[in-house]
Amino acid sequence: MDGPQRRIDKLTSILDVAKAMVAQRDLDALLRMIVREAGRVVDADRCSLFLVDREEKVLYSKVAQGMGPSPRIRVPLGVGIAGATARTRRPINLPDAYADSRFNRAVDLSTGYRTTSLLCVPMFNTDGDVAGVIQALNKAGGVPFSDEDEELLLALGGQAASAVENALLHEEIHQLFEGFVKASVVAIESRDSTTAGHSERVARLTLALADAVERDGRGPFAGIVFSPDQRMELRYAALLHDFGKVGVREHVLMKANKFHPHELTLVEHRFDYARKSFEAESLRRQRDRLAAGERLDPVLMDEEAILSAKLRELEAARELVRRCNRPTVLPAGISAPLAQLAALSFLGPDGLPQTLLSAQEVELLSIPKGSLSPAERLEIESHVSHTYRFLKQIPWTRSLRRIPEIACGHHEKLDGTGYPLGKAGQEIGLEARMMAIADIYDALTVSDRPYKRSVSHDDALEILSADVRSGKLDAEVFRVFVEADVPRRFLEDGEERTAERAAAR
Amino acid sequence: MDGPQRRIDKLTSILDVAKAMVAQRDLDALLRMIVREAGRVVDADRCSLFLVDREEKVLYSKVAQGMGPSPRIRVPLGVGIAGATARTRRPINLPDAYADSRFNRAVDLSTGYRTTSLLCVPMFNTDGDVAGVIQALNKAGGVPFSDEDEELLLALGGQAASAVENALLHEEIHQLFEGFVKASVVAIESRDSTTAGHSERVARLTLALADAVERDGRGPFAGIVFSPDQRMELRYAALLHDFGKVGVREHVLMKANKFHPHELTLVEHRFDYARKSFEAESLRRQRDRLAAGERLDPVLMDEEAILSAKLRELEAARELVRRCNRPTVLPAGISAPLAQLAALSFLGPDGLPQTLLSAQEVELLSIPKGSLSPAERLEIESHVSHTYRFLKQIPWTRSLRRIPEIACGHHEKLDGTGYPLGKAGQEIGLEARMMAIADIYDALTVSDRPYKRSVSHDDALEILSADVRSGKLDAEVFRVFVEADVPRRFLEDGEERTAERAAAR
Repeated sequence: MDGPQRRIDKLTSILDVAKAMVAQRDLDALLRMIVREAGRVVDADRCSLFLVDREEKVLYSKVAQGMGPSPRIRVPLGVGIAGATARTRRPINLPDAYADSRFNRAVDLSTGYRTTSLLCVPMFNTDGDVAGVIQALNKAGGVPFSDEDEELLLALGGQAASAVENALLHEEIHQLFEGFVKASVVAIESRDSTTAGHSERVARLTLALADAVERDGRGPFAGIVFSPDQRMELRYAALLHDFGKVGVREHVLMKANKFHPHELTLVEHRFDYARKSFEAESLRRQRDRLAAGERLDPVLMDEEAILSAKLRELEAARELVRRCNRPTVLPAGISAPLAQLAALSFLGPDGLPQTLLSAQEVELLSIPKGSLSPAERLEIESHVSHTYRFLKQIPWTRSLRRIPEIACGHHEKLDGTGYPLGKAGQEIGLEARMMAIADIYDALTVSDRPYKRSVSHDDALEILSADVRSGKLDAEVFRVFVEADVPRRFLEDGEERTAERAAAR
Repeated sequence: MDGPQRRIDKLTSILDVAKAMVAQRDLDALLRMIVREAGRVVDADRCSLFLVDREEKVLYSKVAQGMGPSPRIRVPLGVGIAGATARTRRPINLPDAYADSRFNRAVDLSTGYRTTSLLCVPMFNTDGDVAGVIQALNKAGGVPFSDEDEELLLALGGQAASAVENALLHEEIHQLFEGFVKASVVAIESRDSTTAGHSERVARLTLALADAVERDGRGPFAGIVFSPDQRMELRYAALLHDFGKVGVREHVLMKANKFHPHELTLVEHRFDYARKSFEAESLRRQRDRLAAGERLDPVLMDEEAILSAKLRELEAARELVRRCNRPTVLPAGISAPLAQLAALSFLGPDGLPQTLLSAQEVELLSIPKGSLSPAERLEIESHVSHTYRFLKQIPWTRSLRRIPEIACGHHEKLDGTGYPLGKAGQEIGLEARMMAIADIYDALTVSDRPYKRSVSHDDALEILSADVRSGKLDAEVFRVFVEADVPRRFLEDGEERTAERAAAR
């Protein structure tokens, strides 16, 4: 092959590489591609690549062939061959590197390599700035690098500069998005201190469960693989699964008992008023009986008996209200006294008889378990629809488009008793089934929810297991959750692993 | 120049273009660059470019030389020369387009152009899929396009395919980020219905004001130019300036009067209790006086007089509480009656004397203006610090790094009386000065804040003007705000303009 044709072929191959470089947005993979192709283009034995850190005025290397996976060499601008190339903006082409005083033999000494010929060129970006340098060692055949090699490596370096800056920009924007999502989740969780960190933990647990399901590969999981894009989709869906809580009012979110504190105070005040009202009635009767000529002592004795019976009844009622106000399961046989309670009345400020508790208040106290009225429970449950509406209006990229659906499915149950859509069985995707288990496990084991105490790991598994037996949760997913010991093995060290994996797309 | 050398030069120039294409992430500018360079590489008179829409199975064009700025032609795959190229994945090279039945003469007819030679090549991406086609018309010198032209245009098309997909990805990620930011702002504003849309309006007003300041160019604004990056920074800062309100509790955010409704109810109940207590005391005295042998009529007359005096005093106090509870400016001379109010007492449920209002309640009612206690005002003001902390933890890209500082400065005043840092004069950047005016204007003119009525455009300018005269707001920025009639001219049609500008980076 004659010279021009070889050059045409080389230029054509650089064009092919340039195209592939733009499509490779993972920086490490891109850098490896660049040094590999640089070596091929100039027939070098080894290549390395340094990027310029303009803030710190140093070159740093993330790939150098023959130096292990992460060399992370840092060289001040102007120092050594690479530093000189970056500073002078000119290629350095040495037939024998050892003859040049700028060459640093330390690397050869540490690796046992012997550099002879060396070609180092600047990588110019479109602004004409030096984005880095590419260094090629030992031209094949023991000859020096040619002028044509210099020119070709410069051309490749220019493409590489553009591609590297592009990959860096992608990484930055991706980190910006990830950072914004995480920070808003933290901001929204901060409204309800008792769930701080819940979303991040659910994300970690769900990703760890996805790993375990993939590794398990048995039965329904045969052939299940989560691609990096799918993992990222799952991670964002889990991170954002409770975002809609921003639309639930704080006093509902944080409700500890059936009455809000100020509602209980109001009821207590009403009881105090009734007490005073009974007392006034009694005094009025005493005055009237005295005015009618009765003797004081029998009047006092009668009235004392009537009033104290009234007040005993009142204080018993007050005690019952305090007891029923708690979110624990109501004891059997309490509905009769509660109904009696509703019947108690006194003379109100307007002079008319008034019941001690409104029908609504009695209904609230009759909630068999937990602290929420049906309306409040609906408001809490509405957070899933809020989340869905929020996520639906976001222009997700194609690979993240299922986020709304996944995030919205974590309260659905296999038997159709979940919300918001009451989906059943196969309508609920694998991702939502995994997230449901992660969500319940974390809600149970976290230490400080206002409406209940945390339970131990074993008790949490027992509760989940009951939900599996009653057909609410996926039995196979739960099997993997337990067998792979997902929460204990992955919750601790999970954060970095899943973040790394999400970034490694 | 001989053949191989010319080819080497062409390939080298394609490499240069490839590098520039990667750096151009604005899709329209990129497409214009591609058709321009395509024409140069194959010496064509005109070029056009079609992209494949795989969902809809059509080709669409955003640039065609000689067809105006936005041709937006849509061609089904397989139809015409371009459609055939996309479907067959092979170049079509015609010496005379009119001799080929697939050629559609309609475009020539509508533009008055006469196509002779035509070269159409597929743009292959790195997956080997056809991302689009490039069509070159009328080779210079009236000769047909050569095989070499075909090869060069294919090479350029491959680079273009990578660059276009890269630009589309950038656009998608940018839209995803923008969409997420906007949706979270809407979600957070939804907590307080009275400020819905405030952030978006402040963003539009601030950007419009930046335009006006740039156009004004007088005095301190000589040479002021906001780059696309700076505009985007300003826009996000304005959109997010109230994000920290997520950390302020709802009942403070929404407070309409000095007492929360349930607090007022509690006070009213206490007054009712006091009434009943006075009544009981009176009846007790009547009973005792009758028991001591006094006659009924004089006892009733005395006690009736005493009790009704007490009750008149009580009801006057109740009326005063209701009046002072409103957030309007307290009338002069009201502090004496308020102090008296604090002294009124009655016998409480525990049988001990108790004041009608606690010292804290009297203090709250004595707030001279507005509905917030000093502690609540601090909580509201803390939203700026919350915003700052939120924005600070986000890994902004270099061009957006000043967002936390700008967003955090909108409540600072030139005379140092603002918050959170009490910055003064030149410590407050131009962006924050502009945003301060936009923020106040919108807060004043919006229709339904709970604590005050909206004011007219003219009154809002008058209030801002007073703040300028007292040295709180920037006089020059305000001058431009008024002279350019920023709110009325830009608030209506502003959304698309600023969004377009932000996207046009």
